[in-house]
Amino acid sequence: MDYVYGPGRNHLFVPGPVNIPEPVIRAMNRNNEDYRSPAVPAMTKTLLEDIKKIFKTTTGTPFLIPTTGTGAWESALTNTLSPGDKIVSFLIGQFSLLWIDQQQRLKFNVDVIESDWGQGANLEMLASKLAGDTAHTIKAICIVHNETATGVTNNLAAVRKILDYHSHPALLLVDGVSSICALDFRMDEWGIDVALTGSQKALSLPTGMGIVCASPKALEASKTAKSVRVFFDWNDYLKFYKMGTFWPYTPSIQLLYGLRAALDLIFEEGLDNVIARHNRLGTATRLAVEAWGLKNCTQKEEWFSDTVTAVVVPPYIDSSEIVRRGWKRYNLSLGLGLNKVAGKVFRIGHLGNLNELQLLGCLAGVEMILKDVGYPVKLGSGMAAACAYLQNNIPMIPSRI
Amino acid sequence: MDYVYGPGRNHLFVPGPVNIPEPVIRAMNRNNEDYRSPAVPAMTKTLLEDIKKIFKTTTGTPFLIPTTGTGAWESALTNTLSPGDKIVSFLIGQFSLLWIDQQQRLKFNVDVIESDWGQGANLEMLASKLAGDTAHTIKAICIVHNETATGVTNNLAAVRKILDYHSHPALLLVDGVSSICALDFRMDEWGIDVALTGSQKALSLPTGMGIVCASPKALEASKTAKSVRVFFDWNDYLKFYKMGTFWPYTPSIQLLYGLRAALDLIFEEGLDNVIARHNRLGTATRLAVEAWGLKNCTQKEEWFSDTVTAVVVPPYIDSSEIVRRGWKRYNLSLGLGLNKVAGKVFRIGHLGNLNELQLLGCLAGVEMILKDVGYPVKLGSGMAAACAYLQNNIPMIPSRI
Amino acid sequence: MDYVYGPGRNHLFVPGPVNIPEPVIRAMNRNNEDYRSPAVPAMTKTLLEDIKKIFKTTTGTPFLIPTTGTGAWESALTNTLSPGDKIVSFLIGQFSLLWIDQQQRLKFNVDVIESDWGQGANLEMLASKLAGDTAHTIKAICIVHNETATGVTNNLAAVRKILDYHSHPALLLVDGVSSICALDFRMDEWGIDVALTGSQKALSLPTGMGIVCASPKALEASKTAKSVRVFFDWNDYLKFYKMGTFWPYTPSIQLLYGLRAALDLIFEEGLDNVIARHNRLGTATRLAVEAWGLKNCTQKEEWFSDTVTAVVVPPYIDSSEIVRRGWKRYNLSLGLGLNKVAGKVFRIGHLGNLNELQLLGCLAGVEMILKDVGYPVKLGSGMAAACAYLQNNIPMIPSRI
Amino acid sequence: MDYVYGPGRNHLFVPGPVNIPEPVIRAMNRNNEDYRSPAVPAMTKTLLEDIKKIFKTTTGTPFLIPTTGTGAWESALTNTLSPGDKIVSFLIGQFSLLWIDQQQRLKFNVDVIESDWGQGANLEMLASKLAGDTAHTIKAICIVHNETATGVTNNLAAVRKILDYHSHPALLLVDGVSSICALDFRMDEWGIDVALTGSQKALSLPTGMGIVCASPKALEASKTAKSVRVFFDWNDYLKFYKMGTFWPYTPSIQLLYGLRAALDLIFEEGLDNVIARHNRLGTATRLAVEAWGLKNCTQKEEWFSDTVTAVVVPPYIDSSEIVRRGWKRYNLSLGLGLNKVAGKVFRIGHLGNLNELQLLGCLAGVEMILKDVGYPVKLGSGMAAACAYLQNNIPMIPSRI
Repeated sequence: MDYVYGPGRNHLFVPGPVNIPEPVIRAMNRNNEDYRSPAVPAMTKTLLEDIKKIFKTTTGTPFLIPTTGTGAWESALTNTLSPGDKIVSFLIGQFSLLWIDQQQRLKFNVDVIESDWGQGANLEMLASKLAGDTAHTIKAICIVHNETATGVTNNLAAVRKILDYHSHPALLLVDGVSSICALDFRMDEWGIDVALTGSQKALSLPTGMGIVCASPKALEASKTAKSVRVFFDWNDYLKFYKMGTFWPYTPSIQLLYGLRAALDLIFEEGLDNVIARHNRLGTATRLAVEAWGLKNCTQKEEWFSDTVTAVVVPPYIDSSEIVRRGWKRYNLSLGLGLNKVAGKVFRIGHLGNLNELQLLGCLAGVEMILKDVGYPVKLGSGMAAACAYLQNNIPMIPSRI
Repeated sequence: MDYVYGPGRNHLFVPGPVNIPEPVIRAMNRNNEDYRSPAVPAMTKTLLEDIKKIFKTTTGTPFLIPTTGTGAWESALTNTLSPGDKIVSFLIGQFSLLWIDQQQRLKFNVDVIESDWGQGANLEMLASKLAGDTAHTIKAICIVHNETATGVTNNLAAVRKILDYHSHPALLLVDGVSSICALDFRMDEWGIDVALTGSQKALSLPTGMGIVCASPKALEASKTAKSVRVFFDWNDYLKFYKMGTFWPYTPSIQLLYGLRAALDLIFEEGLDNVIARHNRLGTATRLAVEAWGLKNCTQKEEWFSDTVTAVVVPPYIDSSEIVRRGWKRYNLSLGLGLNKVAGKVFRIGHLGNLNELQLLGCLAGVEMILKDVGYPVKLGSGMAAACAYLQNNIPMIPSRI
Repeated sequence: MDYVYGPGRNHLFVPGPVNIPEPVIRAMNRNNEDYRSPAVPAMTKTLLEDIKKIFKTTTGTPFLIPTTGTGAWESALTNTLSPGDKIVSFLIGQFSLLWIDQQQRLKFNVDVIESDWGQGANLEMLASKLAGDTAHTIKAICIVHNETATGVTNNLAAVRKILDYHSHPALLLVDGVSSICALDFRMDEWGIDVALTGSQKALSLPTGMGIVCASPKALEASKTAKSVRVFFDWNDYLKFYKMGTFWPYTPSIQLLYGLRAALDLIFEEGLDNVIARHNRLGTATRLAVEAWGLKNCTQKEEWFSDTVTAVVVPPYIDSSEIVRRGWKRYNLSLGLGLNKVAGKVFRIGHLGNLNELQLLGCLAGVEMILKDVGYPVKLGSGMAAACAYLQNNIPMIPSRI
Repeated sequence: MDYVYGPGRNHLFVPGPVNIPEPVIRAMNRNNEDYRSPAVPAMTKTLLEDIKKIFKTTTGTPFLIPTTGTGAWESALTNTLSPGDKIVSFLIGQFSLLWIDQQQRLKFNVDVIESDWGQGANLEMLASKLAGDTAHTIKAICIVHNETATGVTNNLAAVRKILDYHSHPALLLVDGVSSICALDFRMDEWGIDVALTGSQKALSLPTGMGIVCASPKALEASKTAKSVRVFFDWNDYLKFYKMGTFWPYTPSIQLLYGLRAALDLIFEEGLDNVIARHNRLGTATRLAVEAWGLKNCTQKEEWFSDTVTAVVVPPYIDSSEIVRRGWKRYNLSLGLGLNKVAGKVFRIGHLGNLNELQLLGCLAGVEMILKDVGYPVKLGSGMAAACAYLQNNIPMIPSRI
């Protein structure tokens, strides 16, 4: 099973699942445990408290659901909305597309605001729709904070501003899968009603925990939402929260201890430092892409993502070949272009527990692959650009000063 | 976090999550990986083939869903049935109760056949219902193979016989959560349409994988079933199966490697030997209970479960106190009595990767606890009874002969 | 490699290497590290301080040597003695025999005081030798605190008393391999000059660290000792202690973190509680042996060992067959009889991070094996005796009260 | 304990201990085991057979000793030589110096042939000494194959040629600590009598196993060698080899399984491919150093080491500051300059289970550090040089073609 193992470490730069730090791997290296003993609820309590800090919420209620991001989406929607409800949803790439597909299959009435892949959400269109909706028929706005397929970060503060400007009561549901714990994210300040992420993204855990946080308004909505749901029903969780046993069904003991370790690492580094580090990694990547003479799939700087960069390749190159070569020759895992941009972009994920030298190893690999596939890159150019920036900006490691 | 750690190993005898064998813990001790690389689909293919052997099916289609048993239930129901469909469901304990609750909340028309807790499914009643249903309005029969709350194993072969006798086309949906891979289970031979289990039970993995297997008839039903579903939709899996990439969303890499190791261990021991071992463990436990002068919650021998024994305590003892003392004094984790039998029974789980001496340590602990709480047990009596049987019946370890 | 794996856990009851607790396995689950970084010396400092508590010394100097118990012996001898030096050494079993063999091969003039295997050190003989040695030609007394081959614990306080009574300046060198951290051990109070143990014994780590503690008098002796040594030379360590880098050559990073975790667990439980637990385990084992009608190899109660029990089998039984069957049928690892008692005794190690229910599982296994090999044991008898004692004596787990 | 943990992986580029590959970490993640069971000797047998392939010997006898490289040295010397024996030993850097110190303290009569640090062994001098030694008073030649302090690889084939030319019967003892399993090494072909390495070097294991291989001539010598030894005595091993139990004292179970996994990885890659990979890593490093305008401590190309590069810094820079900054700012662990070259060189270890992108991450780090400390490096220059070479020379990963 291990024997596609190449010599040395795998350089994992897909935008999730991401590298798990050693202390987290260690924390999860354990036998099962009775989750009804006094120990597990006691730990769960600390996790629920601490996860709120990651979302920057004090009023939200978190749910740690044994599922993936797709399940977290379903949890957000079915707990707050009823079939037939009108929602506005932004389509800007593959993951927003998949969420919209889910919204439609869950029988909501989805008003899709589409942008070109590489652009952010069209907020003017949102403003105009809200302006026209004086009857408040729109029940929710669904937006992906960071579109993982194109490396586009949407401006959530602006979305809130528009809603407020129109005094519109629609719920604001946010996919923070590739943003929370890596990008600036402020659930309370931005009036987000449901925010969600997955354990295998910036939290740097294995897949298997969908993390959903609901505002008081979202919880209120869940009391009347008519979408059929059982596994994803927040009420089952709330019932067990009240009892102090927390779990309506069996959680993964390993992921709980893993989350504990992951949060400890994040608080040790400082959440703001974590976010700043992601900005450094994103900036360095973009500087390298520029130095290679390639285009960022993201069309404007205001949408640049600090967690994933989608790089556009010239038309005579198949970006899938870049990914294939990465794996076969350099033990480097890059992200494929998806759907509309399949073959046209490859993606560098730079999120989670990752440092600058790891990224530079990846960028060196990309340079060599570009040469492999016939792109006239000047070897060292991307590294030079990235290093020039990083050498000025990397801070001392706080625990080692 | 570790410091409710008692000296020595925790003796984990709840009926799930169960002990994870060392080779499986090792296999999962790893970083994340790109699940879109060629390696993961190649491994997934072997898992899907091999998991069918555990269900004893050649025609079934397996789904490895990132969820729990509760999610696996929901997957079984929503993929095969439409809201309003009439189903017959057996209520014999807490887990059948929870499944029925789910069935009702998913808007099926549930005809509940209730038995006393401690009895098996009332199959006479099923026969009479099927006899009266010449119009075939009953779309599915839902039955829990092994009720974990009371230690009752239902006779699935008999259920199939009744369906066949009445030539009734209802789907047969089976919760095999605490049976599959521990008790005799024959999906094809017994004409089971959907069978399901969870990774943390007899497969001896962490929680996080709901394993569902669908017969061709169930797959056919899924094409017209109108229950709203996305995360649990088999069709999304089937689409990716066809593409050879297998995963509609991100799986847990760790659980995949863990499942590979778990299956390898099971095949190494031999599935029939695994089942025989569970019979030995169950028999030994029941002999000890008898020797202690206590009653098995299971009312008839035909229903005795080889994976969990629910022990009835005298009225002057609170069974929860037994569980508490196990944890606080002996580092022994026993199962609580649930719902109707709360305070009245405690449960010994004897499933998964477990051997006889581990069980005997547990039984010794139970004896001492019984004494602790004022029950006049003769110390050594249960051990003597269990050992007398085991010493005659334990085989040599095949790999060591 | 794993596939002599039997179902369930291996029951490891050899008197070393012993079971490693999960938190220690976790702590060692890590990559290598630069041992010249500031982190490793900082941790080493805490280890050196804390290991002294285990030896109950404040004046001793500890050495954590990458070696085994045999190497620790050599370190003790070569650093304090010169070839030709006269030493008195007690021969009471296989390990004292091996140490004496080493002493002779290292060219010391060894005066052996031999006892029957199963008896403790002949202290009267020591007294008489010391009385006769008014010229103080005896440079050292070498004694094994707990002879692992026969389960005999020597009375170190009495040895010190005799030395003091005769005002004899001989160094007191003690093999504490199967005693330190399990039996009452007081380096300072008993005037021990060199005490040593191995990581794989009561500290419950993997093999690979010989732990040696030297009194100021022993350190003084090392300045003039003429035994040739380099790898084992304390002076090389002391030089690096002074520099604050601690390691004359590369230590095992994993064992350092493992030792840290092991010490944390011991301090959490309380060293005195650890010792009391070993007494409970030893007592319970002896009560079982008695109930089975078998003899303890240890001839007098005053020598009973709380870390290992050597059980004498009737002449018509080959004790090796007992060990073989344990491994082949019950996944139970017992200790063989060694040398003079080969075939005549088998050994139950009950030391390290172990609890009562684990021991009871082992004792149940031994009962069944005894029956297997034709000994007329009454099944349950040993369990009954052990449980009767334990049920009265096991304390609550401190961290769970 | 973990909390000097920086974000992301530690970049470990000291020349040992080196990175442990994940499959090896996994293999060692286990409880202790009875090393006297049938399983451990069976595995040991495969290890002893397979380790010989690493040394390229069919006639040698390997010893896996629970010790470090320093202990392996002592084992090589004390088993083959007697106090007072004349030996010729090359002094070319810190590790040859330490070995010579050991040789002297072990009371051999050491004739030291010294070279400048940065030069290889002076073989002309050896030739002249052998020519003069018609009486064959020289009993052994001791040479470090790869001096880890200066990155100098000696020509062992040439040493053998000289010995043969003079028909000199002296034993050839070789320290292969930082060469075996990374550089071309041919024990039999080069007539090496004792070769040794440590587990934490190119084998990529934790520290704790000294691996020594003795030629038949060396074994013969061990029968008459008068150096006092017990722990390191080969005869104790040979006695247990004959019995088929292999271990005179307790081995580390974890290291045995780790070695099994390490060897499997090496054979999977192919030993010659492993050696070729080290050549690529060494070449790339030297090209970067050249591009930075810095000098290699190794004075001639014929001595260039493919496992470690010692880089000379300009006089106005303290190389220790480079190492410090690596650790404090970049999570990069580099090797210090030792003894004569302290402050003057820093070292990049490029041995063990390591790939090209890992190295490039390290080289990027070194570039930035050089800039940090005021050296006028052109950022990207080293990367460009290394990548230009590597992009032409990295083969496909065999298991992924």
